[in-house]
Amino acid sequence: MSYAKLARHFARLGHLRHATEILRWDEAVLMTQASGAARADALATLEGQMHGLLADPQVPAYLTRAGDEASVGRLGPWEAANLREIRRLQQRAAAVPATLVEQTTRAQLRAEQAWRTQREANDWAGFAPLLTEVVARKREQAAALSMALGISAYDALLDEYEPGCRVETIDRVFGHLRSVLPDLTEAAIERQRERPVTLPRGPFPIESQQRLARRLMLAVGFDERRGRLDVSHHPFCGGVPSDVRITTRYDETDFVSALMGVLHETGHAKYEQGLPEAHVAQPVGQARGMALHEGQSLLQEMQISRSRPFLEFAAPLIREAFPRAVATQPEAFTVENLYRVYTRVERSYIRVDADEVTYPSHIIVRYDIERALIEGRMEVEQIPDAWDAGMRELLQLPTGDDHARGCMQDVHWAAGLFGYFPTYTLGAVAASQLYASVVRRFRDLPERIAAGDFEGLNSYLRDHVWQKGSLLESDDLMRHATGRSLDAGFLEAHLRRRYLE
Amino acid sequence: MSYAKLARHFARLGHLRHATEILRWDEAVLMTQASGAARADALATLEGQMHGLLADPQVPAYLTRAGDEASVGRLGPWEAANLREIRRLQQRAAAVPATLVEQTTRAQLRAEQAWRTQREANDWAGFAPLLTEVVARKREQAAALSMALGISAYDALLDEYEPGCRVETIDRVFGHLRSVLPDLTEAAIERQRERPVTLPRGPFPIESQQRLARRLMLAVGFDERRGRLDVSHHPFCGGVPSDVRITTRYDETDFVSALMGVLHETGHAKYEQGLPEAHVAQPVGQARGMALHEGQSLLQEMQISRSRPFLEFAAPLIREAFPRAVATQPEAFTVENLYRVYTRVERSYIRVDADEVTYPSHIIVRYDIERALIEGRMEVEQIPDAWDAGMRELLQLPTGDDHARGCMQDVHWAAGLFGYFPTYTLGAVAASQLYASVVRRFRDLPERIAAGDFEGLNSYLRDHVWQKGSLLESDDLMRHATGRSLDAGFLEAHLRRRYLE
Repeated sequence: MSYAKLARHFARLGHLRHATEILRWDEAVLMTQASGAARADALATLEGQMHGLLADPQVPAYLTRAGDEASVGRLGPWEAANLREIRRLQQRAAAVPATLVEQTTRAQLRAEQAWRTQREANDWAGFAPLLTEVVARKREQAAALSMALGISAYDALLDEYEPGCRVETIDRVFGHLRSVLPDLTEAAIERQRERPVTLPRGPFPIESQQRLARRLMLAVGFDERRGRLDVSHHPFCGGVPSDVRITTRYDETDFVSALMGVLHETGHAKYEQGLPEAHVAQPVGQARGMALHEGQSLLQEMQISRSRPFLEFAAPLIREAFPRAVATQPEAFTVENLYRVYTRVERSYIRVDADEVTYPSHIIVRYDIERALIEGRMEVEQIPDAWDAGMRELLQLPTGDDHARGCMQDVHWAAGLFGYFPTYTLGAVAASQLYASVVRRFRDLPERIAAGDFEGLNSYLRDHVWQKGSLLESDDLMRHATGRSLDAGFLEAHLRRRYLE
Repeated sequence: MSYAKLARHFARLGHLRHATEILRWDEAVLMTQASGAARADALATLEGQMHGLLADPQVPAYLTRAGDEASVGRLGPWEAANLREIRRLQQRAAAVPATLVEQTTRAQLRAEQAWRTQREANDWAGFAPLLTEVVARKREQAAALSMALGISAYDALLDEYEPGCRVETIDRVFGHLRSVLPDLTEAAIERQRERPVTLPRGPFPIESQQRLARRLMLAVGFDERRGRLDVSHHPFCGGVPSDVRITTRYDETDFVSALMGVLHETGHAKYEQGLPEAHVAQPVGQARGMALHEGQSLLQEMQISRSRPFLEFAAPLIREAFPRAVATQPEAFTVENLYRVYTRVERSYIRVDADEVTYPSHIIVRYDIERALIEGRMEVEQIPDAWDAGMRELLQLPTGDDHARGCMQDVHWAAGLFGYFPTYTLGAVAASQLYASVVRRFRDLPERIAAGDFEGLNSYLRDHVWQKGSLLESDDLMRHATGRSLDAGFLEAHLRRRYLE
């Protein structure tokens, strides 16, 4: 009875999340500029109502009684897992006083708004005090969560984005990558010199790009009866499992990044569309965490779509989409050249432009700094020097006082997203590890991909990842799906195979 | 202080209304079919949260104290009016027990869903018991509201859609129309025989229709920075004042109805876009009522857009939009013929297809029946006979047992909308009365309209109607704007001028 009441209560939370997801998508894709303030009010009130449900004073008593039901075996595995997730949400919500939540939100909004202009102006002196305020509030939150959950301060923040993940895992994975990436990057760049590349020149009509993107998106398994593709300034995957909304942006002079952007978001979308329908409004029906979510998009983008077999499948469709560009520059549209285009390696300052070889180094620099900040081992004034040192060590790119291309390039910290960055690289590791498992299951996977057949891949992921929702903890899910815990050796092996063999 | 607290509390209601409006629009225009159940859950939960805000036990005490603030003159006119509206909402919400609300909703859903198939099957025997259940619940609601508000049962329902309106007004207005419409309709049809009409033949390409509709919509004053036009199965005006969303549906064989549909919705949209921005989230910032809302759309459609001056302005644009149809049938696209097309009168069974001369008769038939039902003077089984008699008397069209074209044609009663039908015709009267006032102010209005100049009209409506929001009660607003209360003589005069002179 108590479990059933909890499930009804938390279904309402799921219904309001449905509402916020659609409103956020609408804001990015359709909303008039004039409606910005009204929409912000609507979303803030919805967040408040959701917090009200989480903080409902009746919930703890129900949780205790539902725990009794679970202990006498009256709950099935999905119900028990749902109870675990509800408890997690409730504990987190109860641990942080509402006033601190408000103070943090206000500090973040101030820092985020200022950051938009300060970054362009390279104004670290103006930004630092605002970021200091955010860090102070996040430290308080982390301390409160740490106390309530019995885990370390940084783990307590990380746990929001990647439930169950702890710094031990990150240190193991990142330690491995840190030891191999500098040499691997150097070798890949060295090797690349022997393989000249021809960059395709446009114009590439937007409508042709849209048709091509849709065609590939459907080919790899996006279900158009349960979602759509639109245009927004920043590409993202939003919506709800029965109506997943992915977006991209097109550039008439370059089809390469929009196309891969759509395939990346399609990876996220297939995960959402594959979540267990029976639990859609419950916490246990949600995707397991940000690392596994990024794992799905990077599996689709990096493992599959930037591979030679995929480009064997896609090249004829790309050529069909842009007949005029092909006519003037046929050598740019061969499978081999497209493969080179899609696997270029370059040390660069900006994370979002980075390739898969250099990307983890960007993340490791950020992880070292944000963890030290939360643990009180570093203050905001020390960030630029730490950033410069990290970029020197891992990418041979000192940043000095160039904060716009350095520690001010990302909005994450201003927005209070501490503990989020590591999930990008945990996702890359998960992607290579899952891909290796699928290949073990289907030895002919490359041939299937070259033939445009993604059903084996999708059914493996559907059974082992998507349909699981949040039934298992991340580590259990990875061990069930791949036979072992997250192991950076899979990412290393993938990079060596693709860039050094 | 108490007023300020109330205003903050009810702003949250406004924010959640913003959310539901956008979600409803999205459902009609974009949502995948697969997401229907999840969206219904999201909207139901949002309604529940809104009801929770209305029924908050702290509100009555705040209302009392804010009333004290008002009585010592500490509130300005907008605040005082807002307090009046908040009280109205709170009283209505408090009057009906939550269990009765739920029972009513369930009865309505059952009747509405069954109606979709039963209407097509002419299955009155199947529908009657379901409608009986709805009527029983609505009678209970009306009784509870009547007790709490100290007004009659039917007035209590009417008051939801048209605050402050009472049956005395409707009886006066409808009594006037009832006495003149049968003869007027006969005379108009007689007169029409002397004026043959050529129906334009398509195809009319959808894209051309869209461009034309947008052009006219912008010409009459729709602000595209604060709204958009899309396609949906049933045309409507939704969204929020800073982002008004109107829809239409196109038919390649007929441009006439889609075009007028867009102009009708544009009338609604201009009202929403013109509401006072400073009070957007408060009850006082909302449109005054359904009659005045329909008044704006009918003013735009009937008074303006179906007039000869407007068609002088629009005909060249229509001809430009459909050059091929014009080439084969030039006589169909003259101003005179388009005017005849847009002012055809015909007695017909179906309300939504009715012209402005016969429309009020359809409404009067429904008003007589629904009021008798709520007042317990009629039972559901008697509806078909009453319908047949009403249609005989007012339109010489007996319906007998043809319920699909008779009393089962509208979803309103199944959906629990009792007290709603009269607002259509009150709106038609308001439209003709407001138009007459604008003409008194701008003697050259017809010439302005023929020249495509709508600024005088719009500024009059903006000042006298749109910007007032819910500051005034409907009757006060009409008297300020037009010098008198609602008077059916204006509609009669309009119809005589247009159809008999």
